[in-house]
Amino acid sequence: MIGAIEAGGTKFVCAVGNPDGTILDRTAFPTTTPEETLAKVEEFFSKHKIEKLGVGAFGPINLRAGSDNYGAIENTPKIPWRYYPLMEELEKRFNVPVAINTDVVVASMGEYEYGIGKDVSSCLYITVGTGIGAGLVQDGKPFQGKNHSEMGHVLLKKHPEDTFEGACPSHGTCLEGLAAGPAIEARYGRKGADLADQDHVWEIEAYYLAQAIMDYFVILSPEKIILGGGVMKQEKLYPMIREKFMELLNGYIEVENVDELIVAPGLNDEQGVKGCIALAVKQ
Amino acid sequence: MIGAIEAGGTKFVCAVGNPDGTILDRTAFPTTTPEETLAKVEEFFSKHKIEKLGVGAFGPINLRAGSDNYGAIENTPKIPWRYYPLMEELEKRFNVPVAINTDVVVASMGEYEYGIGKDVSSCLYITVGTGIGAGLVQDGKPFQGKNHSEMGHVLLKKHPEDTFEGACPSHGTCLEGLAAGPAIEARYGRKGADLADQDHVWEIEAYYLAQAIMDYFVILSPEKIILGGGVMKQEKLYPMIREKFMELLNGYIEVENVDELIVAPGLNDEQGVKGCIALAVKQ
Ligand SMILES: Nc1ncnc2c1ncn2[C@@H]1O[C@H](COP(=O)(O)OP(=O)(O)O)[C@@H](O)[C@H]1O
Ligand SMILES: Nc1ncnc2c1ncn2[C@@H]1O[C@H](COP(=O)(O)OP(=O)(O)O)[C@@H](O)[C@H]1O
Ligand SMILES: [Zn+2]
Ligand SMILES: [Zn+2]
Repeated sequence: MIGAIEAGGTKFVCAVGNPDGTILDRTAFPTTTPEETLAKVEEFFSKHKIEKLGVGAFGPINLRAGSDNYGAIENTPKIPWRYYPLMEELEKRFNVPVAINTDVVVASMGEYEYGIGKDVSSCLYITVGTGIGAGLVQDGKPFQGKNHSEMGHVLLKKHPEDTFEGACPSHGTCLEGLAAGPAIEARYGRKGADLADQDHVWEIEAYYLAQAIMDYFVILSPEKIILGGGVMKQEKLYPMIREKFMELLNGYIEVENVDELIVAPGLNDEQGVKGCIALAVKQ
Repeated sequence: MIGAIEAGGTKFVCAVGNPDGTILDRTAFPTTTPEETLAKVEEFFSKHKIEKLGVGAFGPINLRAGSDNYGAIENTPKIPWRYYPLMEELEKRFNVPVAINTDVVVASMGEYEYGIGKDVSSCLYITVGTGIGAGLVQDGKPFQGKNHSEMGHVLLKKHPEDTFEGACPSHGTCLEGLAAGPAIEARYGRKGADLADQDHVWEIEAYYLAQAIMDYFVILSPEKIILGGGVMKQEKLYPMIREKFMELLNGYIEVENVDELIVAPGLNDEQGVKGCIALAVKQ
């Protein structure tokens, strides 16, 4: 059996499953201190005999090949987790091979192996939630540079009618600063869910997401672009993003069918745990 | 012996060398029609016994895995070359394994194997010339999505003092449209080489290149970023780009030494042919 941990900033999901992606048991609990949280993780896995463990973690994490602190959380605002050697602690406690990556790469792995990306050679999974992140799986492997990507921080051209100065403390008007859930809330003084009928809000949101997707597309040439996360609950965004993306691309690269290129997740909130399984199986 | 062909849009360079990157013989001639040009290629290689051939080609080319026309030139403005099956023709004529990639990926391979990227795990090579392109080598392999990247077409925020509408026929103000040699010439009515003493020109140029590099950096996390091409003959651009890049990144990702991150090529115009050798050896 394969173990899976979605180590999120607000909650942990633990699960066990088969290499084919079937989930056999699962639990979830809030993220508190590392000691308390890992005690609950141990409790769950004490009921199951696992051979391998896959982990999708909130970031930033150290994925620098050959680094002493590989698999440790890095400089996070969540103080008790700052520099916590997550992978090392899990290896110590469970004594099985542990594979770790970012939450978005793991979601991408899930969709690639078992979901909407099953029949393609590369998936880019973008989450538009409290933050914006993206992870690429290319030919079955997580794309990995010197460290993991931080794709939510690409710089964007402002929408001509948008006067918001941007919410990213580092870059102001990067994608995350302009289009993550908190940016919408800061721009309009109301949460995205309460702005559902305001066309102008989603017009601007789609404009920014399409722009970033254009950049990802010309750089990475992914075969599927999957958009998930809380903000994408506004399903009208999908056709708007597709249309704006095709306008921006303007025929420069041929896209056979944009409805199949830019899509919603196929796994219905299970891409994370299933991706952890895939990550563990593949490593 | 390994054969190398830098198949450029204005000239072809043919060479033979050893797997260690030593070049033993070379020639260059203008690119005319495919038949005429390949006849000259045959003439050169008839003097040498090659085991393998590496090719860096002007684009766009078909690098879609499994495609019937893999290695063919695609929809280029150079009419006689449009849809020309370059790789197939070379295989037919020389009857050796042919490895093909874009000119920028091949330059990146050259620097990665034999040049300034010798000791790192990933190189992004950016050329700023008549067009702008970039190629990534990650862990010794060309990065390859569904097709090759078109990184010169990332979208940018305009410099507040730049009123130029952009020269890219598809996107107007993408990086290539704002910062390639012809964009500089269109903006000021004079060639870049004749504007060397106009600080404002290079201020704007560095602003755009730094912005694009920021996007590449957060998406790809390369260990070296190498800037080559005619426009980079303005060497003052290097420190300006480094400074603006660090301002834009604003500490979000740690960069130990930006002078070692953003650099000039190490191979002095030989990165192309040497990269062809590396490509052939590795495939
Ligand atoms: N129906 C909705 N419409 C628009 N925005 C939403 C909706 N539901 C949640 N959000 C926004 O999504 C963000 C939370 O994203 P989510 O992916 O659920 O969590 P997280 O990113 O923290 O893991 C919040 O900023 C919230 O306002
Ligand atoms: N010293 C220079 N300063 C600024 N721009 C230059 C300089 N030399 C060449 N260029 C510009 O670089 C472009 C040619 O780039 P190059 O890399 O030499 O060729 P190509 O991209 O066609 O292979 C032209 O637009 C030219 O104006
Ligand atoms: Zn940012
Ligand atoms: Zn363009």
